[in-house]
Amino acid sequence: MNGISAEQLNQAHQADLAIQSEEGVVFEHAWADPDEGVIYCLSDAPSAEAVMRIHQRAGHPADEIHAVPLEV
Amino acid sequence: MNGISAEQLNQAHQADLAIQSEEGVVFEHAWADPDEGVIYCLSDAPSAEAVMRIHQRAGHPADEIHAVPLEV
Repeated sequence: MNGISAEQLNQAHQADLAIQSEEGVVFEHAWADPDEGVIYCLSDAPSAEAVMRIHQRAGHPADEIHAVPLEV
Repeated sequence: MNGISAEQLNQAHQADLAIQSEEGVVFEHAWADPDEGVIYCLSDAPSAEAVMRIHQRAGHPADEIHAVPLEV
């Protein structure tokens, strides 16, 4: 989403938070590059499909969802 | 990097940490999807170029680097 503002990012995140419990998802953090229209979102969830359903219902379907079982 | 292990991710991260101060970069976190070979890395840095130089010298050049001035 090119040109996304801090307020828009917050609104999108709040829209996820409002319904996340219906799929057992916990959205933890989101980062945005407004110039290139890239948004990264980190969540704890039972499946990629659960995350996708929340993002779709919140009005911003994800282009990619990756499980990241490894972290450092 | 398909099939990356926790140990390999940690080794790659340590290689970044060992030289990050030479470019004023602080690598904060990395997440990996070993099945699809995707690694995300979050850092605080003076520029995307500084991050790329560290990753290149550490032996794992990044495919993409995005500044993320917005977060929630």
